[in-house]
Amino acid sequence: MSMPLNPAAAPAGRGQSQAIDLIRKIDRIDGHWQPRVVAEMNDYQFKVVKVQGEFPWHVHADTDETFVVLEGELKIAIRGGADAGDGECAGGEAVIVLRAGQMAVVPRGVEHQPSADAEVKMLLIEPRGVVNTGDGAPGARTVANDQWV
Amino acid sequence: MSMPLNPAAAPAGRGQSQAIDLIRKIDRIDGHWQPRVVAEMNDYQFKVVKVQGEFPWHVHADTDETFVVLEGELKIAIRGGADAGDGECAGGEAVIVLRAGQMAVVPRGVEHQPSADAEVKMLLIEPRGVVNTGDGAPGARTVANDQWV
Repeated sequence: MSMPLNPAAAPAGRGQSQAIDLIRKIDRIDGHWQPRVVAEMNDYQFKVVKVQGEFPWHVHADTDETFVVLEGELKIAIRGGADAGDGECAGGEAVIVLRAGQMAVVPRGVEHQPSADAEVKMLLIEPRGVVNTGDGAPGARTVANDQWV
Repeated sequence: MSMPLNPAAAPAGRGQSQAIDLIRKIDRIDGHWQPRVVAEMNDYQFKVVKVQGEFPWHVHADTDETFVVLEGELKIAIRGGADAGDGECAGGEAVIVLRAGQMAVVPRGVEHQPSADAEVKMLLIEPRGVVNTGDGAPGARTVANDQWV
């Protein structure tokens, strides 16, 4: 697979109709908490990222967000959320622990804080245009959207 | 995690706010080519499935579709599709080969045929309501939607 000259620009085919090796893509990213788009499905984006440490608490009022862990162990603390059916987060706080091969969907409007004691490689799935640090003012961790790898 | 009494019904939380082990879910499915929903993100569904052999050629005119391979080697033959940027499928036929940790997005309107020489376990992502065998009349492989595991 040939790479575009500018790795930050969207390729002509939006990453479709081709095999995408997720870990290989992540290994081309410098730094943690730097999501990069690898493909689009309708108006959704697949983003790969490696993370370590604590991310700020944030919320996306208008969309659910999906995390698929490829390597490592990710924790997602959630609070103030809708009841997930088990009563664990009906206004309280809970922690979702995800290991390789596991995924979780964080509902819209639920405050969450991803963290990783050791490096985690993962796939994020969410609509195009979602800001990584959530609603409100940008912060130190806010990353520009639509950067491809 | 407690399982619903009827494994085919959608759980109250739509599979959200919890860790989902994809292979463990697949191991609870009987038979090949039997996709089962594990979670929803907005109006999209995450479906797990194990497959072996050849699936019929089909097309989804209105939506892209995503395949993420968890175990095994999946082939997706595509034809008559839009140019993916590399010129390989501008009206011709091509085969996408996916191994564990790899994904592909098949664009709307592109005829495709998944196949697997040996068993493959994978995750499908697509809007709620997409028929597995595509547009047109149902066939022997058509499976009812909204069956959860």
